[in-house]
Amino acid sequence: MSKKYYLGIDLGGTNIKTGVVDEDAKVLSKYSTPTLAEDGGPKGILTRMGQAGEAAIKQAGLNIDDIVAIGVGAPGALSHKDGIIIAPPNLPGWKNVPVRDAISEYFNGKFTTLENDANAAAWGEYWAGVGKGTDSLVMLTLGTGVGGGIVYGGRFVRGYRDVAAELGHMIVEPRGRLCACGQHGCLEAYASASNAARIAVEKITGGTQSSMRAVIEKGQPITTEVIVQHMHQGDQFAYDLWHETCRYIAIGCLNLNHTVNPQVIALAGGMVNAGQHLLNPVRMYYNDLQGNIFGGLCSEIVLAKLGSDAGLVGAAGAAKITLELGDW
Amino acid sequence: MSKKYYLGIDLGGTNIKTGVVDEDAKVLSKYSTPTLAEDGGPKGILTRMGQAGEAAIKQAGLNIDDIVAIGVGAPGALSHKDGIIIAPPNLPGWKNVPVRDAISEYFNGKFTTLENDANAAAWGEYWAGVGKGTDSLVMLTLGTGVGGGIVYGGRFVRGYRDVAAELGHMIVEPRGRLCACGQHGCLEAYASASNAARIAVEKITGGTQSSMRAVIEKGQPITTEVIVQHMHQGDQFAYDLWHETCRYIAIGCLNLNHTVNPQVIALAGGMVNAGQHLLNPVRMYYNDLQGNIFGGLCSEIVLAKLGSDAGLVGAAGAAKITLELGDW
Repeated sequence: MSKKYYLGIDLGGTNIKTGVVDEDAKVLSKYSTPTLAEDGGPKGILTRMGQAGEAAIKQAGLNIDDIVAIGVGAPGALSHKDGIIIAPPNLPGWKNVPVRDAISEYFNGKFTTLENDANAAAWGEYWAGVGKGTDSLVMLTLGTGVGGGIVYGGRFVRGYRDVAAELGHMIVEPRGRLCACGQHGCLEAYASASNAARIAVEKITGGTQSSMRAVIEKGQPITTEVIVQHMHQGDQFAYDLWHETCRYIAIGCLNLNHTVNPQVIALAGGMVNAGQHLLNPVRMYYNDLQGNIFGGLCSEIVLAKLGSDAGLVGAAGAAKITLELGDW
Repeated sequence: MSKKYYLGIDLGGTNIKTGVVDEDAKVLSKYSTPTLAEDGGPKGILTRMGQAGEAAIKQAGLNIDDIVAIGVGAPGALSHKDGIIIAPPNLPGWKNVPVRDAISEYFNGKFTTLENDANAAAWGEYWAGVGKGTDSLVMLTLGTGVGGGIVYGGRFVRGYRDVAAELGHMIVEPRGRLCACGQHGCLEAYASASNAARIAVEKITGGTQSSMRAVIEKGQPITTEVIVQHMHQGDQFAYDLWHETCRYIAIGCLNLNHTVNPQVIALAGGMVNAGQHLLNPVRMYYNDLQGNIFGGLCSEIVLAKLGSDAGLVGAAGAAKITLELGDW
């Protein structure tokens, strides 16, 4: 009996990534093309998404009739139920674009589903990555921003209005730093790569002593790698900043445990390049801050492992699960 | 065709409440008897639970053969999957008691399910109360402690190890007040009725001016009612304390929105007696603190309406849903 194949399309602000994934989450092909978000608007991009999908199908040695369903992962805000991208900040000129139906039409009416890109990535890790075989997974994506996705009991937790798992906007410091979203004290205001860098620049230009001052004076960016490197070279401020960042991530993880108690919390995004230098202090603070009544019952924190493939694998997997279970 | 009937048993530290509920969530009978937690241990209490169940069945004019399934709501920690109460703080001497099987055996092998009492209460409100007809509900119980339950997509979010929805232990103030659980800055440390009272006593005995000083000097307790009453009589500290309490509750609700985005967040527990004096400021801070990117998409905050019946109604409903869907 032949396998079932799914097409995943991961629409990003920079690239459109596509791939064919089989029912066992094996990736048969991968293809990438620039989104060209600035020129063309929805129509051109939708056509490029279709073409990139065709390219991945061809590369896998298949044709469209071999594909059971198509999953599109895209930046929010979007409506999974209506299949519409509402107003993504990184796709200028997009407003209420019926992506699901447009892609389905491009592929002659093939079953298509639209998921938030963070949800799709979480599903990828749950289905094929670090969450494989688990019952439930929450992904916490630590990049330029902080995002996430929740898979519970083999289903997405999308939220009543598709805004569940906006994990970067959990408030962890009331009256804290202003977040881009307008709230104060969001996890993202402390634990994103860009905000950790911003805090470093603020403090150092404000007079705090640090070996990272030389980096700033050379006009180079303060990245996660720079902070970790200077910490290891003995810079006290870099140490304090990194540990404070990890402590906020741990608080975010504790709050996720106290709401969803997933089997695993998977850390993902650019900050994960720090590997054990991220995981170890996050776990340390997570255990340290944890209430003693939860001993042994809390979610395990792990590093995601699919990297930038998570989105397209998860989009394909979302197509599979949505076809099987329907919208729930 | 005759209706299907379910028996709900709500085991509390003070009382055992039972009731027969039909498939449409109509309560046919209610019965209550003291738990007598201090004497008897598990065996005596399990027998009283059975007897109280029989009393409710009889009162409804039915017999055990008319009952489709039995739901038991009980204080945690417990394992739904194993049907075992692990170590409830308010039932001294209980350790790993197989409540589900004991009750099932009492009723000649009738299908029985065991739920955390907070989950059961959330299910009650979802099935028959303020969440009726909604897609998802999170209950936030503001009493002596702060607890909760999560219903999403018609299913419980129990957590991988049955410790989901420990909503009182979300950390909302890092380096904040020590909570009974051992964590610092838990929602419960600020937003429970008893902790609001504790903060009042601390501040007033520490020198803060307040008309509530007279209450303390008379040796009377500072309750939610007292705080609200003094606020209305113009006491500035009572106003500040109540608003700070409501602000923390609002932060808790925002964090629930940013994780689960349920259709409704139902406030329950003793503090809800304050009615609109609770709901209005909580909603005000919730809207006020909310990021502007979430406009119109956030969960609605409402007051629960089943009061102390929520537990037994929800336990009966949990029996129904578990029989229908299995453990998931």
